[in-house]
Amino acid sequence: MRELLDYRSEFPILEHTTYLINHSLGAMPTQAEERLAEYARTWRERGIRAWGEGWWNLPLTVGDQIGRIVGAPAGSTVMHQNVAVAEAVVLSCFQPAPERNRVVYERGNFPSVRYLYQAQRDLEVLVCEDDDEIVEAIDERTLLVPISHVLFKSGEIQDVERIIERAHEVGAFVILDAYQSAGIVPLNVTALNVDFAVGGSVKWLCGGPGNGWLYVRPDLAERLEPAYTGWQAHQTPFAFEEEMRYAAGAARFLTGTPNVPALYAATAGYHLIEEIGVERIRANSLRQTGLLIGLAEAAGFGIASPRGPERRGGTVTVHVDEFPAVHEELSERKILCDFRPGAGIRIGPHYFTSDAELERVIEQIGEIVETGAHQRHLGAVARH
Amino acid sequence: MRELLDYRSEFPILEHTTYLINHSLGAMPTQAEERLAEYARTWRERGIRAWGEGWWNLPLTVGDQIGRIVGAPAGSTVMHQNVAVAEAVVLSCFQPAPERNRVVYERGNFPSVRYLYQAQRDLEVLVCEDDDEIVEAIDERTLLVPISHVLFKSGEIQDVERIIERAHEVGAFVILDAYQSAGIVPLNVTALNVDFAVGGSVKWLCGGPGNGWLYVRPDLAERLEPAYTGWQAHQTPFAFEEEMRYAAGAARFLTGTPNVPALYAATAGYHLIEEIGVERIRANSLRQTGLLIGLAEAAGFGIASPRGPERRGGTVTVHVDEFPAVHEELSERKILCDFRPGAGIRIGPHYFTSDAELERVIEQIGEIVETGAHQRHLGAVARH
Repeated sequence: MRELLDYRSEFPILEHTTYLINHSLGAMPTQAEERLAEYARTWRERGIRAWGEGWWNLPLTVGDQIGRIVGAPAGSTVMHQNVAVAEAVVLSCFQPAPERNRVVYERGNFPSVRYLYQAQRDLEVLVCEDDDEIVEAIDERTLLVPISHVLFKSGEIQDVERIIERAHEVGAFVILDAYQSAGIVPLNVTALNVDFAVGGSVKWLCGGPGNGWLYVRPDLAERLEPAYTGWQAHQTPFAFEEEMRYAAGAARFLTGTPNVPALYAATAGYHLIEEIGVERIRANSLRQTGLLIGLAEAAGFGIASPRGPERRGGTVTVHVDEFPAVHEELSERKILCDFRPGAGIRIGPHYFTSDAELERVIEQIGEIVETGAHQRHLGAVARH
Repeated sequence: MRELLDYRSEFPILEHTTYLINHSLGAMPTQAEERLAEYARTWRERGIRAWGEGWWNLPLTVGDQIGRIVGAPAGSTVMHQNVAVAEAVVLSCFQPAPERNRVVYERGNFPSVRYLYQAQRDLEVLVCEDDDEIVEAIDERTLLVPISHVLFKSGEIQDVERIIERAHEVGAFVILDAYQSAGIVPLNVTALNVDFAVGGSVKWLCGGPGNGWLYVRPDLAERLEPAYTGWQAHQTPFAFEEEMRYAAGAARFLTGTPNVPALYAATAGYHLIEEIGVERIRANSLRQTGLLIGLAEAAGFGIASPRGPERRGGTVTVHVDEFPAVHEELSERKILCDFRPGAGIRIGPHYFTSDAELERVIEQIGEIVETGAHQRHLGAVARH
C-alpha cells in the first residue's frame, strides 16, 4: 500500500506552496492535466465520432465513479455543472400543494442553496438554527429538507440520520448537500436511505470546477419526472422524437448536451480518492485536524470549529484577532488557506498534507500576530 | 487579410479527414488545446488564487465575447452548460397566469427545447408547422415564443423579425435559439430587439461542449428575477449573505460555480470567428452551399434543405435512397458528415473547408450509390 505522503508527488503545487485550502479548491492532480490533453486529443482526432466513443455517456460513467465514493449503486448518480443546477432539477419534480409547501433548512446551508429555495414562489421556507431544530420543525406540511452533511462555514458534521428518519415519517424528501464531506468524511447514501444527494468536485474530490453531481434514490428516480429537462434525459435522444419519454434511472435527471471537458478533468482526482479509500483519508484527517487543534490551542488561538471527532469535518477554523488580515499575510508567505466572515481562518489539510505543513501554518500565524506583520492588510475582505 | 484557406492549418483534423460536420461538432482549433493546458497550468500553479485572477468572471467575460459575435452589448450575455439549462433559467422568471399561459413554437424546434416546454405543468404548448403559422397563433394568451433562427433538421433560416414584432404587439416574449446560426449566419440580437437568445458552441463556433450562452435584453435583465438561481447571481457572492440580492445585468441569470475548463477551451474558436467576421464567413458559406447544391443536383440527388440563399443556413441536406447506410460508408472513407431521420445527409462546410472537399463528398456519394458499397451498412441509425 502506498504511503499517503507518497501521493505528494501527484500534486505539483505542493513543491512551492503550503496548500491548506482543499475545502475550497482542492489541489490539482497531475493526471488532471493529462486528462485535459486527452480531451483535446479526442476532439482533434476523433471529431464527431467522440460522442459515440464515450463523450455522450460521460455524465453517467463519471457519475458512477462518484457513486462508488458515496455508496450509490451504478446508474443512480449523474453530473451537472454545479449544485444549484442539480437542485433546480430536483425541485422541478415537485408541484407543491398549499398544504405541503414547506422547506425546512438550516441557517448554515450554503448560500447558493438558500437563494434557490427562497426564490421559489410556491414554497415557504423555515430557517432553523441547528439539526435539533430541523427535526422539530419537520411535519406534515414539509415537502423538502435540504441539509448539509458538513456545514461550509464551521466544518461541523450534521446529524443527518435523525433528520432523514423524521422526514420520512411525515413523507418529506431530504436533499443532502455533501459538498463539504464527499472525499474527506465517509458517506453512504444507500445506508442513509437519503432521497437525493448533491455535491461538487471543486473541493475534497480534487476534480475542479464544472463537476457537480446528483444522486437520486433508485426507486424515486423511476417515478419522478423533472420538469427542467433536456434531450439527454430522453430514453432515445438520437431518435429526435417530438415528445418526451424519460430515460430510466438517474439519466432522466440530466439536461442537454454534457459538459465534456470538465468531466475529463474531474476523474483524476476521483481515481486517487477511490484508490486510497475515504475511510483511510478520514482516519488521517482526524489525526491531522486533532493535531491542528492541539497546536492552535497551545498557541492560545480560538477554535471556531467543532473539537469532538464525531462532529469534526475536514477543516479547522482558527480564530485570532484581525484574522482577515492575518490570512492575507499567510497568503503572501505562500501558505494558502481562507477565511469566512464571522468565523476565522479555515485550514483544510488533505491526504497529501504533511504534519510539518500544519506545524508551519500555526507557527506562522503566531509569528504574524506577534510581529503585527498583518497590519498592512487591515481591511481585507473574503474573496473566494 | 488572411485567406480563408490559410485557416486550415489551425484545424489539425483536416490533415487526414474531410470534416463536413461543423453543424454538429465544429472542428477543434489548435489553440483550444493550448487553452486547456493553460487552465491546468492555472489550477496547478495558482490554485485558489485563480478565482480572483479571472476564473470567477469567466461566464461574463466569455459571454461578452459571444456578445460581440451576435451583436449584444457587454454585460448582456452569460454562459451556461447548455441551452436546456439557459432556457430553464429564463422560464423560471415567469409565473404564468391562466389567461396568459401559452407557449407557441415550431415543430422543428430542437427536441431539448420541446421537452423542456412540454414538461411545464402551468404552460399550454401550441405546436406550429412553420413561421407563418407561428405569427398567426400568437395572441394575448401567448406568454413565450421559443423559436429557432435556423432549424436543426432542414438548415432553414426562419423569418424571425416578423415573429418578434408580432409577439411584442401582444406582450409575449421571444426566446431565439441561435445554435445553428451563431458563427455562420449573421445575427444581431440588438437590431432584432429579441427578448432572449440562446445558443451553444459545439457547432459553428468551434468552442466544444459545455458552453451554452444566454443573452437577455438589458432592460429585461434589470426587472426579471430568475427563480432558478445560485450564488453567482448574487450582487456580492463572497459576502455569503443569507438573502438573495440579484446582481445587475445578465449576471443575475447565472447559477452556481462556473464551468471553468469548458470556458477556457471555448474562446479559441470564438477568437477565429471574431477575427474573420461572420459576414465574410457567410459570404463564403453561401458560395459553398450553392456549389454543393449545384453538384448534388447535377449528380441527380435530391435536396432536402432550402435552395434560396435567403432561407439557406450553413448546411445542405442531400437525399439519396438508403442515405443512413451511405452516410456510414462515407464515414469509413473518412468523410465526416451526419444524417437526420426523414431528411437526408447533412453536409456542413465551414470557413476552412476547401471546394475540393465539397466536390469529393458529392463524387463519393455518387460512387457509393452506384457501386452499392453502402449496402453492408443497411440498418444504420442516427447516432450523434
